[in-house]
Amino acid sequence: MSIDALCINTLRTLAMDAVQKADSGHPGLPMGAAPMAYVLWQRHLKHDPSNPHWPDRDRFVLSAGHGSMLLYGLLHLMGYAVTLDDLKAFRQWQSNTPGHPEVGVTPGVEATTGPLGQGNANAVGMAIAERMLAARYNRPEFPLFDHFTYALMGDGCAMEGITSEAASLAGHLQLGKLIVFYDSNDVTLDGPAQVSMSEDVGARYSAYGWQVLSVANGDTDISAIDSAISEAKEESGRPTLIIVKTTIGFGSPKKAGTSAAHGSPLGVEEVAATKRALGWPESPPFYVPNEVRAHFLKAEKANRGRRLHWEELLSRYRRANPQLGAELDRVLAGKVPSAVHSLAPPITSAPIETRSAAGAAQNAFALEMPELVGGDADLGGSTKSVLKDLGSFGPGHWGGRNIHFGVREHAMAAIANGICYHGGLRPFVATFLVFSDYMRPAVRLAAMNHLPVTFIWTHDSIAIGEDGPTHQPIEHLMAMRAIPNLVIFRPADAAETIEAWRSALLRTDGPTGLVFTRQKVPFIDRTVCAAADGLHCGAYVLAEASASTPKAILIGTGSEVAVALEAREVLEKAHVPTRVVSMPSMELFAKQPESYRDAVLPPAVTCRVSVECGITWGWERWTGSAGASVGIDRFGASAPASTLLREYGITPQNVVDTVRRLLSPRD
Amino acid sequence: MSIDALCINTLRTLAMDAVQKADSGHPGLPMGAAPMAYVLWQRHLKHDPSNPHWPDRDRFVLSAGHGSMLLYGLLHLMGYAVTLDDLKAFRQWQSNTPGHPEVGVTPGVEATTGPLGQGNANAVGMAIAERMLAARYNRPEFPLFDHFTYALMGDGCAMEGITSEAASLAGHLQLGKLIVFYDSNDVTLDGPAQVSMSEDVGARYSAYGWQVLSVANGDTDISAIDSAISEAKEESGRPTLIIVKTTIGFGSPKKAGTSAAHGSPLGVEEVAATKRALGWPESPPFYVPNEVRAHFLKAEKANRGRRLHWEELLSRYRRANPQLGAELDRVLAGKVPSAVHSLAPPITSAPIETRSAAGAAQNAFALEMPELVGGDADLGGSTKSVLKDLGSFGPGHWGGRNIHFGVREHAMAAIANGICYHGGLRPFVATFLVFSDYMRPAVRLAAMNHLPVTFIWTHDSIAIGEDGPTHQPIEHLMAMRAIPNLVIFRPADAAETIEAWRSALLRTDGPTGLVFTRQKVPFIDRTVCAAADGLHCGAYVLAEASASTPKAILIGTGSEVAVALEAREVLEKAHVPTRVVSMPSMELFAKQPESYRDAVLPPAVTCRVSVECGITWGWERWTGSAGASVGIDRFGASAPASTLLREYGITPQNVVDTVRRLLSPRD
Repeated sequence: MSIDALCINTLRTLAMDAVQKADSGHPGLPMGAAPMAYVLWQRHLKHDPSNPHWPDRDRFVLSAGHGSMLLYGLLHLMGYAVTLDDLKAFRQWQSNTPGHPEVGVTPGVEATTGPLGQGNANAVGMAIAERMLAARYNRPEFPLFDHFTYALMGDGCAMEGITSEAASLAGHLQLGKLIVFYDSNDVTLDGPAQVSMSEDVGARYSAYGWQVLSVANGDTDISAIDSAISEAKEESGRPTLIIVKTTIGFGSPKKAGTSAAHGSPLGVEEVAATKRALGWPESPPFYVPNEVRAHFLKAEKANRGRRLHWEELLSRYRRANPQLGAELDRVLAGKVPSAVHSLAPPITSAPIETRSAAGAAQNAFALEMPELVGGDADLGGSTKSVLKDLGSFGPGHWGGRNIHFGVREHAMAAIANGICYHGGLRPFVATFLVFSDYMRPAVRLAAMNHLPVTFIWTHDSIAIGEDGPTHQPIEHLMAMRAIPNLVIFRPADAAETIEAWRSALLRTDGPTGLVFTRQKVPFIDRTVCAAADGLHCGAYVLAEASASTPKAILIGTGSEVAVALEAREVLEKAHVPTRVVSMPSMELFAKQPESYRDAVLPPAVTCRVSVECGITWGWERWTGSAGASVGIDRFGASAPASTLLREYGITPQNVVDTVRRLLSPRD
Repeated sequence: MSIDALCINTLRTLAMDAVQKADSGHPGLPMGAAPMAYVLWQRHLKHDPSNPHWPDRDRFVLSAGHGSMLLYGLLHLMGYAVTLDDLKAFRQWQSNTPGHPEVGVTPGVEATTGPLGQGNANAVGMAIAERMLAARYNRPEFPLFDHFTYALMGDGCAMEGITSEAASLAGHLQLGKLIVFYDSNDVTLDGPAQVSMSEDVGARYSAYGWQVLSVANGDTDISAIDSAISEAKEESGRPTLIIVKTTIGFGSPKKAGTSAAHGSPLGVEEVAATKRALGWPESPPFYVPNEVRAHFLKAEKANRGRRLHWEELLSRYRRANPQLGAELDRVLAGKVPSAVHSLAPPITSAPIETRSAAGAAQNAFALEMPELVGGDADLGGSTKSVLKDLGSFGPGHWGGRNIHFGVREHAMAAIANGICYHGGLRPFVATFLVFSDYMRPAVRLAAMNHLPVTFIWTHDSIAIGEDGPTHQPIEHLMAMRAIPNLVIFRPADAAETIEAWRSALLRTDGPTGLVFTRQKVPFIDRTVCAAADGLHCGAYVLAEASASTPKAILIGTGSEVAVALEAREVLEKAHVPTRVVSMPSMELFAKQPESYRDAVLPPAVTCRVSVECGITWGWERWTGSAGASVGIDRFGASAPASTLLREYGITPQNVVDTVRRLLSPRD
């Protein structure tokens, strides 16, 4: 058996054995895609197992994340900190070889994948980041950033809409250093792919502006794979799709080429039969021939040399460009500039849309943070999220900081995740709050993977008015708050908006959702009310009751804080001492010590009324069983905003009436 | 001016005037797309304004819903119940001309659109429904179902992933009676489309297997539009995309061809200037020439004749095929067969996965309900949602009741919506609960539009085990419950599963989400516990406390009801009288009278503990301020299910400990 075949069959049998031992997993993809992965990793991939975070390494994203054992096998053989014992602990509690690849769990894993299509969009984000960093930091003789981004997808990924969005944008942006393998095995979980798919994927990618190459026999034709990769690397003006025809579960006498090899262990007998068919010893399991180890070790050493060369280049760069070098070190470390802590953009006393206040704040912070880049889904004019005078990203303008994602919300979010995964940049993305639903799977992955993406969601209530119920968020605030590790802010005024942006930028261990109004909100006089930096505790006493112990507490968020303040005026005049709490972030408030929470919402004060333009369910945590909520538990309608707010009862009067009902004995 | 030009300019000026009067809206698309819409509606569309529900009418979906005034103008001129006063009330409170088209609000509107891409997928659903109904009801000489489905999309729709998914599936299914206009005006909200889009949409659709036709001058070349439609109708084996190059805001001297015409009123002066340029009287606004009215009236009369002819055909059909005729009348009326009320599929006492119990129930109901059709996103084997022996839908097998959607969750849900919009069928769609996120925008529209889609979501907790956090729902139950008018069921056993399916099928005014386990749940002995039909109240006392007044109440859903029952045993032995409440549907329980809710959860019993494999937030509504929740407020992990449940504390012991903590005085 040639050394290549030995290596490839090692990957195949490791996958089979690990899935069998776990009695759970997907052996088919690793067995079919092992040749292309092997050729890529052994002959082309620029990386260094001894330093998985080398900034200029090539990125490899296994978009078809269910084939995780292919990746773990490669990482093990290449010398990453993935041992044979780790492979034997595949899919077990606290192992570093979970069912689907997870960033931060396994060294060398570049993206958490599994939900299909996400990895493809992550890879586009990485390729964008590479071009951006090259534009800002490369200098003559200092090609600090010059790497490829590879992804591997299957039929499932190819069918997902997010893949289409990402591929279309990648073609538009002419991301020539993006190379995607399409493991075309014609089999999906439920059977032959032709049951649900008959499109010409290659022609589709050509239509997107990609170079499309094909390998007719991906099971054994190593040199064809090798040539295709070389050809892909030479094309600098277009991303490349390499369609590799393979056999799922290659080698398995009974299951190769069928969906039986897709998502279940082959079975002890079929594993043995497959090993015989591959010319492999039936035992021991997890067998790695010594030649294979030696062969991978050689590649590892070569890789290390490339990395050390790059480190040396970076040292010289720092000397030649001390300022840029320091900035680069900072952004690669993910450190936030100290100016972000203290920046105080001006605020006027005029009523303002929080989206506009946000755009101003964002632009001010952007001047302090060159790493802040991002864009919108064809709504920059409405979300006010454009970075002024900082250029548009695109071919020949790789230094532009605004990315025009088009009407592709889902890919936009996943691309932002990819930019974060890459490192060196801090992305934001913007659209209307109602369309956060389109982005939701990617938002969840940002939260799961501690990615500091800033999601900007404007037009945050029925107060958008005439566009009607399809464009009016009702349940979105609560539904987004439900995602673990996502922090949502809905600021009440310009001052809170600035603090919300500050908090988002200072957060480095997870995503933040910033929710802004389309309509103007009143100025809150902070010389009378409390300072806006209370936002960093999630909630704070904005306006105190006239008496030392309030009789009622009104809790508002965003534009409804003004409603609460107006209601307070009425109640105070009626001799009901009323406190107003601004609660821009429930999640942060929930994390405060009990003593602080009790200080803001004293347990003895049970007359609590929340007011928020959204569903009331979920507010019980703060209003308590004896409290009440003013909100909206049905869909919106098309009409001017003032009409809607009146008809839906988002009014000071309704808040006042609710308080009075709570304070009166029952009829 | 020719009569065609007069009619087209009437549509253009009505749109301009209505948007101007509302001071809000999108004039650009109606002005550009008026010619193609006029030719379609005037010369081709089979419909009857006097009976907007004629089952065999052609369907027209304005996927680019922001161009609503185009549709309202057509409906007005065609003779639907949309008056000139209605047009003048565009975007006003309780008018029938809301900002985006809404089904049920405006006669003649076939789908609620606005969130981009949804309409395209709805249209695919309608085209599927047409083929299905034709296969089951058409008989020689009785072509009861033989209509086209048209959609109109813009650049925004073309960029959305859901459109790609739907178009790929439509090509695969060879839906020859689906015809989509692509209003290619090269302008989106933020500017020229080329800022974010350079793909070849026609080539992409060809790759999907569509016929692609082009009209070079869609602003004035009426006959080219007419020919393209005719050619599209003649192609029976492929859907057709007609790319029509147009000028957004055609006629506007200053704004035509720019994004300024997209989403804002033209302004009083520019409206006047545009009318002059179009050779139109500047006043009055909303001017409709008499010749135009007469011309549309003629078309209306011809249409009525076609409908009356069809009614007569149906009468003869009923006589020739009385049984089928009665069934057809029933399904078109959306009436559920009475057998659904009483059907009692057998239950055994063995532990069972609720997904499997669900599959059995679903198949039993399917035999009583020929209108029950649907499918899954390449997970039929896992969701157990396949209708056995009832065939796969596809070319030449239009009678098949299983639709293989492929890995296209978002389009799947929106296609189900389209099938509902069409009428005559009751769709279900299935995937894993975690992927409900991919479908969310379409689920919301099902809820908003009262569409009785059944969403099947299996693999409903960390108990899926090894696939890990990317596949483990945590926040999804609560996030789905947040959508107004969506009813979620998470049944505890086979008996509740049957009732949940029954409830879903009996519901005709909105969607139902059915949430099932991957793992087995214990049999609940209903001779000891309460009957499962308590499910129809949302929650019910499953196991009563030994004392007349319980000291503790445990509230469980789905697989955690068994955890609660086990905990109850322990507590009862320790002399804590404990009631167990099964709460398969929070939404239904919330709708019960207070007396019932207080009977199930007596206000006096404040020691209440919920147990659910998901976020705890939101449970306060039922546990009250003095209660507690056992749940999961972080992401899952990859490991065997039993390990995960132990590590995450979803155990009877943890429930018992929580009760004891609540009952003991604080430390």
